[in-house]
Amino acid sequence: MRVAVLRGPGDVALEERPVPEPGPGQVAVRVISVGVCGSDTHYYDHGRIGRFVVEEPLVLGHEAAGDVAALGPGVTSPAVGQRVSIEPGVPDLTCAQCLAGRYNLCPNMRFFATPPIDGAFAEYVVVHAAFAHPVPDTVSDDAAALLEPLSVGIWACRKGRVTAGSRVLVTGAGPIGLVSVQTALAFGATEVVVSDVNPARLDLARELGATAVVDARTSSVTDLDRPPEVLLECSGHPAATAQAIRSLAPGGRAVLVGMGGDELPLPLSVVQERELELTGTFRYAGTWPTAIALVASGRVDLDRLVTGTYALGRAEEALTAGRRDHLSVKVVVHPQR
Amino acid sequence: MRVAVLRGPGDVALEERPVPEPGPGQVAVRVISVGVCGSDTHYYDHGRIGRFVVEEPLVLGHEAAGDVAALGPGVTSPAVGQRVSIEPGVPDLTCAQCLAGRYNLCPNMRFFATPPIDGAFAEYVVVHAAFAHPVPDTVSDDAAALLEPLSVGIWACRKGRVTAGSRVLVTGAGPIGLVSVQTALAFGATEVVVSDVNPARLDLARELGATAVVDARTSSVTDLDRPPEVLLECSGHPAATAQAIRSLAPGGRAVLVGMGGDELPLPLSVVQERELELTGTFRYAGTWPTAIALVASGRVDLDRLVTGTYALGRAEEALTAGRRDHLSVKVVVHPQR
Amino acid sequence: MRVAVLRGPGDVALEERPVPEPGPGQVAVRVISVGVCGSDTHYYDHGRIGRFVVEEPLVLGHEAAGDVAALGPGVTSPAVGQRVSIEPGVPDLTCAQCLAGRYNLCPNMRFFATPPIDGAFAEYVVVHAAFAHPVPDTVSDDAAALLEPLSVGIWACRKGRVTAGSRVLVTGAGPIGLVSVQTALAFGATEVVVSDVNPARLDLARELGATAVVDARTSSVTDLDRPPEVLLECSGHPAATAQAIRSLAPGGRAVLVGMGGDELPLPLSVVQERELELTGTFRYAGTWPTAIALVASGRVDLDRLVTGTYALGRAEEALTAGRRDHLSVKVVVHPQR
Amino acid sequence: MRVAVLRGPGDVALEERPVPEPGPGQVAVRVISVGVCGSDTHYYDHGRIGRFVVEEPLVLGHEAAGDVAALGPGVTSPAVGQRVSIEPGVPDLTCAQCLAGRYNLCPNMRFFATPPIDGAFAEYVVVHAAFAHPVPDTVSDDAAALLEPLSVGIWACRKGRVTAGSRVLVTGAGPIGLVSVQTALAFGATEVVVSDVNPARLDLARELGATAVVDARTSSVTDLDRPPEVLLECSGHPAATAQAIRSLAPGGRAVLVGMGGDELPLPLSVVQERELELTGTFRYAGTWPTAIALVASGRVDLDRLVTGTYALGRAEEALTAGRRDHLSVKVVVHPQR
Repeated sequence: MRVAVLRGPGDVALEERPVPEPGPGQVAVRVISVGVCGSDTHYYDHGRIGRFVVEEPLVLGHEAAGDVAALGPGVTSPAVGQRVSIEPGVPDLTCAQCLAGRYNLCPNMRFFATPPIDGAFAEYVVVHAAFAHPVPDTVSDDAAALLEPLSVGIWACRKGRVTAGSRVLVTGAGPIGLVSVQTALAFGATEVVVSDVNPARLDLARELGATAVVDARTSSVTDLDRPPEVLLECSGHPAATAQAIRSLAPGGRAVLVGMGGDELPLPLSVVQERELELTGTFRYAGTWPTAIALVASGRVDLDRLVTGTYALGRAEEALTAGRRDHLSVKVVVHPQR
Repeated sequence: MRVAVLRGPGDVALEERPVPEPGPGQVAVRVISVGVCGSDTHYYDHGRIGRFVVEEPLVLGHEAAGDVAALGPGVTSPAVGQRVSIEPGVPDLTCAQCLAGRYNLCPNMRFFATPPIDGAFAEYVVVHAAFAHPVPDTVSDDAAALLEPLSVGIWACRKGRVTAGSRVLVTGAGPIGLVSVQTALAFGATEVVVSDVNPARLDLARELGATAVVDARTSSVTDLDRPPEVLLECSGHPAATAQAIRSLAPGGRAVLVGMGGDELPLPLSVVQERELELTGTFRYAGTWPTAIALVASGRVDLDRLVTGTYALGRAEEALTAGRRDHLSVKVVVHPQR
Repeated sequence: MRVAVLRGPGDVALEERPVPEPGPGQVAVRVISVGVCGSDTHYYDHGRIGRFVVEEPLVLGHEAAGDVAALGPGVTSPAVGQRVSIEPGVPDLTCAQCLAGRYNLCPNMRFFATPPIDGAFAEYVVVHAAFAHPVPDTVSDDAAALLEPLSVGIWACRKGRVTAGSRVLVTGAGPIGLVSVQTALAFGATEVVVSDVNPARLDLARELGATAVVDARTSSVTDLDRPPEVLLECSGHPAATAQAIRSLAPGGRAVLVGMGGDELPLPLSVVQERELELTGTFRYAGTWPTAIALVASGRVDLDRLVTGTYALGRAEEALTAGRRDHLSVKVVVHPQR
Repeated sequence: MRVAVLRGPGDVALEERPVPEPGPGQVAVRVISVGVCGSDTHYYDHGRIGRFVVEEPLVLGHEAAGDVAALGPGVTSPAVGQRVSIEPGVPDLTCAQCLAGRYNLCPNMRFFATPPIDGAFAEYVVVHAAFAHPVPDTVSDDAAALLEPLSVGIWACRKGRVTAGSRVLVTGAGPIGLVSVQTALAFGATEVVVSDVNPARLDLARELGATAVVDARTSSVTDLDRPPEVLLECSGHPAATAQAIRSLAPGGRAVLVGMGGDELPLPLSVVQERELELTGTFRYAGTWPTAIALVASGRVDLDRLVTGTYALGRAEEALTAGRRDHLSVKVVVHPQR
């Protein structure tokens, strides 16, 4: 089969590899759609993300969907031919974190496209059967792939306890920010303000349901009429984050989703006097059933985010789409093409 | 001013009374719309609800909205002329329950239209200023009145922890059941099944967004394809409740909203093996901001529930509308007419 | 090796069987102490518990500790020779319930001494390595075995949200009730009232820290000076349970631990007006680390509960100790003797 | 009556003032014991704390107990003569925060010894009757006063979700840190590590039940064998706080109690990868019943913290005790002497 391999920063090439065989408890999935994530682009550009360094050739891509091609020993479901969305991180299931229902914090997690684990820019991948989630016909192939970033938004809303009537601020209108807008609305938020410096992204945020937008080049989130109760921080800029935290209402929650910077200069008197809560987020746990329900019910529209589609042979173009086109939001690779 | 007074079972008459003066911390409200609740009808029919007995003439009506007519000593807001929705139960604010944020359980609660406290079938009422909630122009007068039953639905969804992707069963499609359908959807539920014996009510439930309906005369909620995670029990029938509890998924929650019967025959092995949770509900606390946000944002449509409008002089007709017309859902009284 | 096998109601015999080999991911444990549980006694007396029927010879015993005798393929810890407490229910780890952190509700749970899974009245057993929890030297062998019933008490306190200053009522002073008394205290409860009909049990409850006792033959829990906030129901008597629920404070929680009877006649007006919560409990999840910490720190004394010790050849005597001696609380079998 | 008045930084003088009359809903309390808090000392030294500036003469002291001397109009309890502990912050009870059960965040809070509200270094004070909490005989006068700092510890443990078996790190062994040690133990923590630079304070921490201590001059909390799950930060040093956050286990919670510094340099990758939660704390809400229960049951010993007692005329000495004696922990003023 063909795979697109990152051989070094800025160097992706197509290779032939044997089709992987599913081991016990695994299924092989014929990959139909794979989203390109900012982490893929970062590995492509820099060859590393923090302490994760690409030392051997690495297959990128962790937002993937396809249909089941083969079952490993002992597997009875999902059936061959079933269309599935892949949850790309498989924990050991038995450590203290896993048994406590926090499998996202498993120290032995094997996560697609994170060195040294290969990802899904490939015609076939294998994955634990329980992490290949069947999707109904009402969910498109691309949407099935994008259940992964949707899971990030769902996890953020859970951590932020977004509920009916919540007032939410989303900082950063990139793919995760835009997904978070939709997710916050699906959790019942009635005010969703989005800030960014890119007017095209803000327009899209409005189209996706944001109730107000803030152009961060000219306005500040601290000038909002009614202070938000929840911050979903998707920009990854520490200074912007600190500013956004200052905008929160007493009792508010700040959820850090974006990555960037080493230290956040947390404004202590604001945190203390308003008794704010802040939480990190690391991937997600138990989000796929919710993600499938939200897309299948029409509450979240992931197809609307797709601004480009590439064959596997053009994976490198997919990885660089964002730098070429500032209107690009989310591009997907279709490995079977 | 004119008030409609319940003088005994089946006996409502119009009387003239002095316009009430707001005391310290209170406002007077010129009442524009008052919903008729099942409890009003029950007092009208039977002169009592459980241990609450109508021993003196009683003004019914506790779902009320209007505009502020006068401010008591020390009150600065809401302003005279402001349109408000009335939260009809005023707690003592200082008991252990109140200080714990559970003011609905305040033993000294003074609740409209609950003996011996008069209600809102009147041209004017007085209420604590903090319990007269300003509503925006996008909320109609009738909807402002019906924020009270909406609060019941909000409270039920909070207790049931309804969230994005929840599968919910609503038993009973009366006004509270129909409000709960909309509320569950507003909290993000993606499956909302409604059961009732009245096909017209089930049609309305579908129209309001129910994803499936069960005609309880011919089908059982225990035959659902996917078991619900949350039961919002709005029928008040103990046997139906026990049956609905049997339909719940492991880890499910049953929220009792409807009142009726003395004992619920709880199926113990089901509760234990599935580790079900059950909770009573008693009115609500802190729901008005959410209720206003849900209606103002268009997520809940209360006007759609109004099937009849009556002048104050026809309050008795309003109280008996349900028994005359099985298509009646919610009727309102307009005291200024 | 020798095992004590239940061949039919009232018929336990010693048999020779091959020492079991640990499979992949498993360890073999040389069993040192096994507690006798009410469920063991019930199987012995009746050959069934509800829908679980003993159709083939069954080894009883699910409260077990020992030391690791052999490691299955792929296992690196716990090490051979390590003393461990066995968590007797091993879920599939990958179903929706497991991934949600509720592995106790796993539909594919394999639980010791529950037909057709054999238990621990044996010289050796095998178990998943992650369910063989290392215990420090400060925990005795018998206490290590009794971490299982302690887990039941921990789960009950978690479900009941027992915390510092809680007022708790424990109905039933059998082994689970007595463990729950200690657990409630360890969770910070400052009032723990215990009711039972057996004065010796009540004396022991006091000795273990109960702040008050109620002899249910002559007094009622509804006469308490201050109503409890949490009920840990360990008697399994529906009528007593209903009575105890009536004693709860507004906002109180009832946790059903005891099993018995088909239906609980739930007093509806009390549940509604006080907004009570009730929850079933089914085994436990993630309790061993807490259980170990509570015993190792001296907060819970399990050795105090042991009223008899039996060699494996006297397993039948152990199973009938309770019916012979009303002062018996918890007996243990020592299979290596 | 006599009061000790702060007239400017470093200037406290005894004055005669009229005995205050309790208004409606209030009681007058004859003050028996008042603790000296770090905030009192800070006002004494600097004349301000952040945005709170002493512009008029101010009576300090907000940790107070006494007996009820007179009832205002409408008050029936507590009775005259009843010994009470004073909760020193009285909210408006009706704002959105109050109605949501978060009265500590009330924007209209009137808090003792916070400009321009006078405190309790006085023979008599008046306070809302619901904030004068009756204490049983088993609680000493000094302990009754010190229920206020105990409330800070209780609030911290609630925010940190300390429960049975928790591993807790307390940074800073001043009065609040030492109270937090005891509180964490009362909430069921089985490991409570304390760090400070003062060996005498660490000795006292051990005596009060800390399971381990870290001398921060020579060791680091990041070297602990088992990482703590909860940080109760009582030092108020941003750099120490950042370091302590780095010591937390995945899923850990950091509770900021100490005040100091403008910005906390939050280590972002640690917060994200371990999915840490951090929360500010601002005073407390609904803690007195728990505080009373913990002291009355003997679980917390507040008297042990008292290292000095002063008559009202020596209030200034009380305020400077800490700077004179590094072994001083908590001093109290007895206004009736």
